[in-house]
Amino acid sequence: MDIKKKFGKQVKKLRLEKGLSQEALAYEANLDRTYIPSIEKGERNVSITVMEQIANALKVKISVLLDE
Amino acid sequence: MDIKKKFGKQVKKLRLEKGLSQEALAYEANLDRTYIPSIEKGERNVSITVMEQIANALKVKISVLLDE
Repeated sequence: MDIKKKFGKQVKKLRLEKGLSQEALAYEANLDRTYIPSIEKGERNVSITVMEQIANALKVKISVLLDE
Repeated sequence: MDIKKKFGKQVKKLRLEKGLSQEALAYEANLDRTYIPSIEKGERNVSITVMEQIANALKVKISVLLDE
């Protein structure tokens, strides 16, 4: 599977486990509200700094976002 | 430490463990020759697809590039 899609699936899984909406995650990660849906669909070639913001918002290590 | 610097340090560590030059890693990862030095210095906000190319070239999982 494409790495962007794998990443998006993992973000969605962890977000739902934490009981966060896409809007709440965007807010916590300091990202635009429209960004999370496109990340979760695997449409974004996210940068390492955005990955860090998402990991911090989900309270996980960045490497957890890439676990398969 | 800044995430870009952490990533750069880890890439350098793994590259040296594999006995690869910066040029050889760039070639294996299909990246411009000048890109690896700036990544290792923590100057690049690398994308997830570039991370995957580097991980494949180093024959590690992407998450290993983010281990602390």
